[in-house]
Formats: sequence, structure tokens, C-alpha cells
Amino acid sequence: MNRGQKLWQKAKKIIPGGNGLLSKRPERYLPNLWPTYFSKSKGINVWDLENKKYQDMAQMGMGTCILGYANNYIDTKVKKIINKGISSTLNCPEEFDLAKKLLKYDKFADQVKFAKGGGEAMAIAVRIARAKSKKDVVAFSGYHGWHDWYLATNLKNNNNLKDHLLPGLEPLGVPKKLANTVIPFTYNNVDEFKKLNKKNLAAIIIEGSRYFYPSKKFINEIKNSCKKNDICLIVDEITSGWRSTIGGIYNKLKIEPDIVVYGKGLGNGYPISCVVGKKKYMSFADKSFLSSTAWTERVGFVAANATIDFFRKKNVHKHINSIGKQIKNGWVKLAKKHNISLIVSENNSLCSFFLNYKNNEELYTFFSKKMLEQNIIASNSIYISYSHKKKDIIKYLKICDNVFKKMNIFIKKKKKLNKLEIRYTGFKRLT
Amino acid sequence: MNRGQKLWQKAKKIIPGGNGLLSKRPERYLPNLWPTYFSKSKGINVWDLENKKYQDMAQMGMGTCILGYANNYIDTKVKKIINKGISSTLNCPEEFDLAKKLLKYDKFADQVKFAKGGGEAMAIAVRIARAKSKKDVVAFSGYHGWHDWYLATNLKNNNNLKDHLLPGLEPLGVPKKLANTVIPFTYNNVDEFKKLNKKNLAAIIIEGSRYFYPSKKFINEIKNSCKKNDICLIVDEITSGWRSTIGGIYNKLKIEPDIVVYGKGLGNGYPISCVVGKKKYMSFADKSFLSSTAWTERVGFVAANATIDFFRKKNVHKHINSIGKQIKNGWVKLAKKHNISLIVSENNSLCSFFLNYKNNEELYTFFSKKMLEQNIIASNSIYISYSHKKKDIIKYLKICDNVFKKMNIFIKKKKKLNKLEIRYTGFKRLT
Repeated sequence: MNRGQKLWQKAKKIIPGGNGLLSKRPERYLPNLWPTYFSKSKGINVWDLENKKYQDMAQMGMGTCILGYANNYIDTKVKKIINKGISSTLNCPEEFDLAKKLLKYDKFADQVKFAKGGGEAMAIAVRIARAKSKKDVVAFSGYHGWHDWYLATNLKNNNNLKDHLLPGLEPLGVPKKLANTVIPFTYNNVDEFKKLNKKNLAAIIIEGSRYFYPSKKFINEIKNSCKKNDICLIVDEITSGWRSTIGGIYNKLKIEPDIVVYGKGLGNGYPISCVVGKKKYMSFADKSFLSSTAWTERVGFVAANATIDFFRKKNVHKHINSIGKQIKNGWVKLAKKHNISLIVSENNSLCSFFLNYKNNEELYTFFSKKMLEQNIIASNSIYISYSHKKKDIIKYLKICDNVFKKMNIFIKKKKKLNKLEIRYTGFKRLT
Repeated sequence: MNRGQKLWQKAKKIIPGGNGLLSKRPERYLPNLWPTYFSKSKGINVWDLENKKYQDMAQMGMGTCILGYANNYIDTKVKKIINKGISSTLNCPEEFDLAKKLLKYDKFADQVKFAKGGGEAMAIAVRIARAKSKKDVVAFSGYHGWHDWYLATNLKNNNNLKDHLLPGLEPLGVPKKLANTVIPFTYNNVDEFKKLNKKNLAAIIIEGSRYFYPSKKFINEIKNSCKKNDICLIVDEITSGWRSTIGGIYNKLKIEPDIVVYGKGLGNGYPISCVVGKKKYMSFADKSFLSSTAWTERVGFVAANATIDFFRKKNVHKHINSIGKQIKNGWVKLAKKHNISLIVSENNSLCSFFLNYKNNEELYTFFSKKMLEQNIIASNSIYISYSHKKKDIIKYLKICDNVFKKMNIFIKKKKKLNKLEIRYTGFKRLT
């Protein structure tokens, strides 16, 4: 076992699950072999506890570091504000600055409310929509965090969240009375959406986009339903925002939100999230009780202001899209070359390949294992950053070439990994 | 209007309520005159947007900055870790370090779960208690944040939260089905607590202490009820923790918690909060779904590790208690001298005076106004920090002497402030 793995064993004893984020658990990539902990990160490089250097071709802080790790421009501004003091009895003016900046890009919106985490901001958005409508039921597709309003989906039927990123999820500890306050619908399934009873809905909630784009028909159906029934359309851009365009992907896809929610990439790793929306909804953020000391801390605002400036100045979204295309084209070419059956994501900025085998999880694990042997932290998804340069991708694809070749042999010879080595994806197996 | 007040008018247009925390709104201190925004903070000094310098004898970042603003020891460690990278696809080892450190002081506990905000950590604690017990109802006294589980109190009766810091609070946007999932009880009222039906309780939640200590009888009654009925005792130490002793005040008061929750002071201003508890409860943090990207960010852990080290090394709690005593004695002496009717808090570390007049709010406002004229940011409560030194208090009390004298004349001559100048405390008047 490496030092990271040893520490992980100790951590699981004193931290339930070992850490605060499922997607950073080694079991989701390469149980027993994943470096698990980092000592240093810079650009796309990550150093483990043994000071071994890797290239990060995987999650980039779960998509938080859209500019790359330890970006000088952002960090210089943050350190400067640390010297000036990050808190006081009074407010920091950067909260206002950030609200103003966001409203420049979210032209449909009038007001902004800030928080620190993504799930937290979604809970605020749902509160606002419920407060405005005086209705309690919300409908959603996609993944939206850990709060009661969302997990309540599974109170009715343990498989309700099956198609929503986390199969087998148990809503333990969520008040049973919340059953039927939330209705899931399948992404891009127009017929299913049409059948939804819209009369009692406070909100319809979708992700801006994950790997595949919503169809025009799906978007139009949602838009029309919201308009017709005066339902608040909340677009969760925590994952999709500030990647494929300036601001939310809703702009590119012609979704017309009433509220959008950003998180992750907004602060290049520093916790900051927000709810941006029309005044007729947002004004209810001050009529319900929404208040937290942590939300007013200065670093998050400063980091987000700097990240947006950098993003706009360097056209980071264009870079991310172009690198995404390069990677996807590479995967497709190499898959053909080595006879690997896969498809790739439509969204360039959330770049993924999806294998088409019975033992997918085993093969993804095989991929991560072989890439790690070449000092690449890799999975079938990449959160591309501004620090991923063309030459990094050429190098990465060269290694992929070799790994896909080995994968083909692994598949053809019907080889097996040790079962304990295979990654877990479902929530149930992680507990 | 000063620059801060002008900015506040603009902020209220694009941020509902103007900011993210009620207690940082100028209307709660001195409407129209409060500096409202800061450009710089250091030690106990705060500079407004006009670069005017004040001493902070009020909230110290709502109690987050227990060591004072811009503490060199903490900030040097934070800036160092920023240079090393604050995020990656892997975990930071400081999460483990902090868990281990906390368990050194919380000897009753086995496991720790982290978040960023206090209200957020309380929602996690409630989720855990509900998950373990398979029961939904919780009973509480005190203030515990913005989440649905807490605000649901007012679904039954709009005055239920009246005695719990925020009278008139409207639970707008909280699902109506949550009515009767939460029962408030009055702090230190043993008879009322005895009458509570304990059979269906998942948790009993109290604050470690606010201004006055819980009576032994009250604590014992709670302890016995929890033991007898196998109820999880959650002690909210977000405000009381890391002020009057190393760790939670529960230690000093001989409360025996199953779970304690810390926030605020833990990171000296950097957002970090945690749930610390017995394994039989905490293990459910991994059985329910609790996961957020923001929770794994590195700065919070590093700041908290450094804050705890500094706190312990310098015996910060002893300093805070001694300064608290100095201030309270000063207030009492001056009140006698100037014939002001007041009492002071029992808790030295949450140092407050409470006037005894019909127009209390007007008089508190008068106090803030006159103190501000002497460049002191002041209210009737002070979150004392390690940076508040004896000589600062001597200077402060000298100014208080003069202000109390003026207050006595104001009272005797039955003078009036302009109504629009008087501070708001209730939630209702703030919306």
C-alpha cells in the first residue's frame, strides 16, 4: 500500500466514508491503488504523499479548478485580500461586485444570493421557488446534491433516483412526510415529461447539461409548461456553468431560466456558489429566512470575481471546447484503431467516453490502472481546465493509444481483474 | 450618507436583503449611519470604504475571528497552502489531521464530518440523528440556522420561534408537510421540558450556552431523558465553542453530548464547520447521502488546524474569559455610576449587557451611535477575541463612561431618536 492508501484506511475510521465527497473516494476509481491524497497541485500536475508527480486527466477538483490548480492570477488576488482581512463585523464590498458582475452575463436576471456549496445553493433556489408559489412539490431531472428536498425522491420508491446519477441511494434521515414533495423525470424524455401533472409544481429543475445536450423538443416542452402553469424554471449550472460558454450553458442551448445556480468552477477551487434569478422570485429570498455567517466570507467573492475576469479575458470556454474536441476525436480514433466499443459525450466541456460492455466497470478500472502506471490520473471523464494544453493532450492520447491496445487484448482474452480491485459506482456499495 | 451606506442602497437592489447574513445588516445596529462595509481589518481594527479606522467592539465577523482579524500565524499557513494548491482530484491530508485533532479534545466522540457553514453542519447532525433512530421528530431550544428542519417550527404556529432569537420568523418555502416534525422548548425551563413527549424524538438539540448558562437541573433533565429514551443529544457549539474553553463549553457545563457541532471561530474567519460524535450515530453519515465538493476544499482544514494550535498554545480561552470579566465589571460599575438599569451575561466569552427599559431598542441604537462617534463599532454584545487586550478595554470603558452618562440624560429627559434611525431586531421588520 502507498502512503495515501494507508492514510485512507486510517481516515475511514474517524471520518464516515473517509472524506466529504463521494467523487474523491479512491473506491470510485481504483480501490487499493489510487494515490488518494495529494500534497501539492499546480496547473494540471498533482503530487501524492510520496511526492510522486501525476498529470490530472480526471476530475480537476471535481470541476472546481477550471483554470487549473494554483492559478497565479487568482491566488495573488486571494492572498492580497487575506492580508487586508477576510472578515469583520461589516460587509465586504466584493459581495456587491460579484453580484453586479454576474448580472452582466445573466441578462435575464435581476438579483443574486450567495452561498458556499452547490447543494446548499440548490436548497436556497428550491426554498425561493416554494416561497413564491406557496406550493411544495418540485419536479427535477439530474443530480442536485445532498439536501432533504432532493433525497426525498427516494422516500416513495427506492429506485426513483436510479436514473439520476446515484442508483440505490437511500434517503435515510429524510423526514418521511416529504414523500411526494418531489417528482423525478428522465432527461430528454419528452413523452414522460408531458405526462407529469404540472398543476401543483413550485419548480421544474434541470441541469444545464451534463454529457449530452437536451433536445430542442425537450427544452420547448419544459419552457411551455413553465410559462403556461407559472412554474419557476431552475437551471442547475453547478457542473455545466462557466465551462462551455461565459456563464451558463442555458445561453447556448436557448433555455430560458427563471433562476440559475452556479458553484464549482466559479471560484477556481475556493468555495463560492450562487443563485441568480428574476426579481419576482429572488425577492422571496428575503421573505423566507436565509442567512449564514459562512456565506459572507470574503475570499470566495474575491476568487470568483478574479475567475470570471480571467475566464472572459482569456476566452477560457473556447480553449476548453477546443481541447474537449481534441480529446474526444482522439478517443474515437483510438477506439476504432483498437476495436474498442465506445461513444463519447456530446458536450465538449464535460468530456467523457462510455464503453459498451457487460463488464464496463472492470474496463474503466483497467483503464485507470494502466493510465496510473504511466503517472496519469485518469477516468472515463475529464473536467478540462485552461491549464490542459494541446501538447498535454497529444502526450495523453499517446498513452491512451497504448492502454486501449492493452484493453482490447484484455477484452479479447476475457481476462479478469481481482474483484476487490474493481471500482464502485453505485452509492450502495460505497457505504 | 457615507460611501458604505450608498453602496448598501445599491446592494439591496441586486442582493435580496443586501447581503448573506442578517447580523451584518446595518439596520440591526444603526440604520443610515453604520459604516456597513469594510475595506481592511486587522487585529480589532476595521477600516471603512473611506479608510476611516474603527475599533471593533461588536461582532468580530459574527464570532468567527476569535484570534482577531488577519492573524499572522493562521494567514501564513493559509497562504503557504494556497501556494501548494487548495484542490485536486485527490483528497487533502489536512482533512484527516483536523478530524484527529478534534477527537483529542472531544473525548466522548469517535468520528467527524466536515462542512463549511454552521447551519449546514446542523442539518447534517439532524440528518444523522434521524437516520439512526428512524424517527423524524426533533426537539430544540435556541437558534440553529436556516434549514427546513429548523424553520419548520413555525409551520404550526407563527410564534413558535418567538423565544428562539428570531421572533416573527416566517417559514416561507418550507414544505407544509414538515409541520410537527420539530418541537421547540424554552431554554432552562425544566417544567416545560418535562412535559415534552419524548417517545418519538430522534434528537434533542440545545446550544452549548448563549448569554446565560443552563441550570444543572435543566442539564440533568435533558441527560436523563436522552438516556432513558435513547435520544441523540446534539449540542450546537457553533457560537459557544472554542471561546470559553478548549473545544465545546459542554465540557465545562458537564453536558454529555452524543454529537457536538462547531463552526464560526473554528477557522478564524475561513469557512469550516464540523459534526463530531459517537460512532453509533456518526456511522449513519455514510449510510445517508451526505456529499459536497465545497466540503473538501483545503483552506478550511488548514485554517482550523492552525486556529486550534494557536488557541491551545496561547490559552486563548483564558484570555477571552478574563477580558470578558473586565468588560462586564466595567459595564456594571458604569451603569451604577450613571444610574442605567441593566444586567450582564453570565457567560464571559459571549459578553453582553441587557437594558431594562421600554424603549430598549432606541437606547441600544443611541449607544451604537454615540460609540461610533468615537470611532468604536459597538453594540450591546461583544464577541471578544484574542486581539482585544486589556488596554483596549480600558480605552473602551472610558468611552462607555461618557456614553452611559449621555444615555442617562437621554433617558431622564425623555429624548427621542428619529424613528427611522432605530435599529431593527425582529426578522419581520427586516424584510
